[in-house]
Amino acid sequence: MIAKPLDDSLRAIVGDTHVITDADVRATYEVDWTRRFSGTSACVVRPANTTEVAEVLLRCSDAGVPVVTQGGNTGMVGGGVPRDREVLLSTVRLDNLHEVDAASAQVSAGAGVTLSHLQNHVRLAGFDFGVDLAARESATVGGMVATNAGGIRVLRHGSMRAQVIGLEAVFADGSVVRRMSGLIKDNAGYDLPSLLVGSEGTLAVITAARLRLVPPLGVRAAALVGVDDAQAAVSLLSKVRDLGTLAAAEVFFAEGLDLVRAHTQLPNPLPAAYPTYVLLEVAARPDPCDEFVKRLSECSEVRDAVVANDVAGQQSLWRYREAHTEAISAEGIPLKLDVSVPIAALAELVAALPTAICAVTPDARLVLFGHLNEGNIHVNVLNAEDCAELVTEAVLRLVSRLNGSISAEHGVGRAKVGWLSLTRSPEEIAAMRAIKCALDPKCLLNPGVLFDDS
Amino acid sequence: MIAKPLDDSLRAIVGDTHVITDADVRATYEVDWTRRFSGTSACVVRPANTTEVAEVLLRCSDAGVPVVTQGGNTGMVGGGVPRDREVLLSTVRLDNLHEVDAASAQVSAGAGVTLSHLQNHVRLAGFDFGVDLAARESATVGGMVATNAGGIRVLRHGSMRAQVIGLEAVFADGSVVRRMSGLIKDNAGYDLPSLLVGSEGTLAVITAARLRLVPPLGVRAAALVGVDDAQAAVSLLSKVRDLGTLAAAEVFFAEGLDLVRAHTQLPNPLPAAYPTYVLLEVAARPDPCDEFVKRLSECSEVRDAVVANDVAGQQSLWRYREAHTEAISAEGIPLKLDVSVPIAALAELVAALPTAICAVTPDARLVLFGHLNEGNIHVNVLNAEDCAELVTEAVLRLVSRLNGSISAEHGVGRAKVGWLSLTRSPEEIAAMRAIKCALDPKCLLNPGVLFDDS
Repeated sequence: MIAKPLDDSLRAIVGDTHVITDADVRATYEVDWTRRFSGTSACVVRPANTTEVAEVLLRCSDAGVPVVTQGGNTGMVGGGVPRDREVLLSTVRLDNLHEVDAASAQVSAGAGVTLSHLQNHVRLAGFDFGVDLAARESATVGGMVATNAGGIRVLRHGSMRAQVIGLEAVFADGSVVRRMSGLIKDNAGYDLPSLLVGSEGTLAVITAARLRLVPPLGVRAAALVGVDDAQAAVSLLSKVRDLGTLAAAEVFFAEGLDLVRAHTQLPNPLPAAYPTYVLLEVAARPDPCDEFVKRLSECSEVRDAVVANDVAGQQSLWRYREAHTEAISAEGIPLKLDVSVPIAALAELVAALPTAICAVTPDARLVLFGHLNEGNIHVNVLNAEDCAELVTEAVLRLVSRLNGSISAEHGVGRAKVGWLSLTRSPEEIAAMRAIKCALDPKCLLNPGVLFDDS
Repeated sequence: MIAKPLDDSLRAIVGDTHVITDADVRATYEVDWTRRFSGTSACVVRPANTTEVAEVLLRCSDAGVPVVTQGGNTGMVGGGVPRDREVLLSTVRLDNLHEVDAASAQVSAGAGVTLSHLQNHVRLAGFDFGVDLAARESATVGGMVATNAGGIRVLRHGSMRAQVIGLEAVFADGSVVRRMSGLIKDNAGYDLPSLLVGSEGTLAVITAARLRLVPPLGVRAAALVGVDDAQAAVSLLSKVRDLGTLAAAEVFFAEGLDLVRAHTQLPNPLPAAYPTYVLLEVAARPDPCDEFVKRLSECSEVRDAVVANDVAGQQSLWRYREAHTEAISAEGIPLKLDVSVPIAALAELVAALPTAICAVTPDARLVLFGHLNEGNIHVNVLNAEDCAELVTEAVLRLVSRLNGSISAEHGVGRAKVGWLSLTRSPEEIAAMRAIKCALDPKCLLNPGVLFDDS
């Protein structure tokens, strides 16, 4: 049993019914589904939100009691069950699932949301999720992030790490880090979400994720192929890979097929038997050109458009975009700031920038361009040489107010060290500093970059 | 000037001509191309390989002299130029570019390889690289990794982080971490490559990268669209995103177009002028079905194949693969091991597994299946309940010998803690432990997972 005070204070945080000490009820949490791993917990705690998770962790940290986090309990390696009287933190109630953000093709989901719930939710909005796996009914977003789940769609969409745009997580001391604004380009310091993906609950408790969604690709064809051996399977894959439409490539063998046929009564898929089988799938939309032109014609936003489907025509269209840099430089030395905002705030950024900059220097000339999908605007300010710091300050503060990043692509370097706190919380900067000290304890690598050491 | 002993010992490591102390020669390294950032270096050191980088860093660490790493010197934020008498480590000679690995669609490149060199190299082999940007002639692989470079293809392929399969890097104390075997699924502990991407030279010196390549997608069409404002641009994007073939979405404005036209004499792209312009591009292969069937018919590996282009037919083909798990379980309780190897070693793994397992227990029944593209095999062993540890040991040692991962998807958890050193070097495990201590100093989160604390 844990000491009474901890028990009591956990009840005070999450409510009496969500601290489970009864051995029979606890038992379902204390063994994994492979039945290979089990142990005893002090109690099961089921916080309802991130604040409660933070309070639980702070209290456990003060008491020196370890915490095991459990999602859907579908893990295969004993990473989510207690060993010896840890507090078991269940994410089951962190099941908040936000509306799909269609403009950014993203969704925010609590750690306790199951994969199937997520899939149904995003499919109703016309999207799909890039990771799929057999345990979808019970596997949770938090567990899939913590273990960097893979599955059969990695070939096309990557593993869970590739789906995570941002995370909310709580460190052992109860401090919360949150990067949930959906920025696709955000190069302001260490990417804590990437580090937490696959960390198996050992660095933080993941409470929510901002996830990338993918367009629903109609499957166009699947093929089951008999080949001679594994090397022929590998060789076959290398010959179909550049189709560019490949969506799955699975392999199995005669022994497995025999078992499957005996178990399912399925017929032999091919007239003869082969030592090795490859299941290939291609997924794509039918004709990109026709669809593209048709879609544009249906968009009320389009005032006019020129479409080029020959190389020379395409190059001449790109020239209008790519000549921006040289055309601006021909006018003077621009102050260049590379920022991003959530795409929903892009119009507000574009509208507010002239005012913000004119307030500093009325003669400034502003030229904007950039990458629409990532809300990434390259801000070029001419006639601002004399007040570069003030203009920078005004732009970065505006971006920060819109939940953007002070550095979309270029990084922090030395140029933006003074403004890092506009885009990273004290908790995030503390975590970055801790990692820096852990890996470069003498602070010898690139001093003055990212962190102010003056 | 730096103390003579350091200077001398650096010369002893890299050779006299690659330690530059002459102020005029140093000068080209000491200012960035924006000319906003400059400083003085103690000397410029140009190591030829990773061993020399490690020796340079160890020597600097012993002397307590900071090190600034410089790639192509195309950064925008002063992250790659010295401030005050640091040693400037130039990656220019780390220009080793390996043959394209067509089976895995990957390539290994030294940190000093320029983007254009990389692009030309992989295009000759029938592939493309997922990141492109204007500074391609001088930007280097190492710098692009260190800053998580983006550019115009992020919409389709993601930023640099998404292209990095593995890295080789040297920490401040000279210890080398290397994950260059090309495993796409490798869930054995913290993903140090992900953490190092975007860390701007403050955590380690990146010496080489294992990079994902993409199929060359023929551009099918580009469109330059005039819209009313930034909000209309955002709205338009959300309506064309589900085409699934979108490859670029750039935005610019009337002011920029006017500048460009004045500078380039380009004609007005549309009959009238609009406040906001969106440049969209779709890229895809023409008809996935026809191409797929045609390609399969050309592959000599194919002994026979059944192709389904209707949903029911596709589902019945998938059933052969998906019923494996239940068919195996119906035969007994299998020992399940989830491993991956470089795809070039997949055939060897499949060939060697029966022998390795039979040496432990001759009655074992082995069923393999998995994800071909990721070299990820689910090893199921029936009739091995009595010797699970020994079979596990035999399989994981074989996988380790083939440069594979002991955990492709499922993680390390508690199940594989004892074997982590088969798949992670002492230097990697030390870095993981340092990060763990930095972020969870009391070791309260998931004790016993990933690290042996007994």
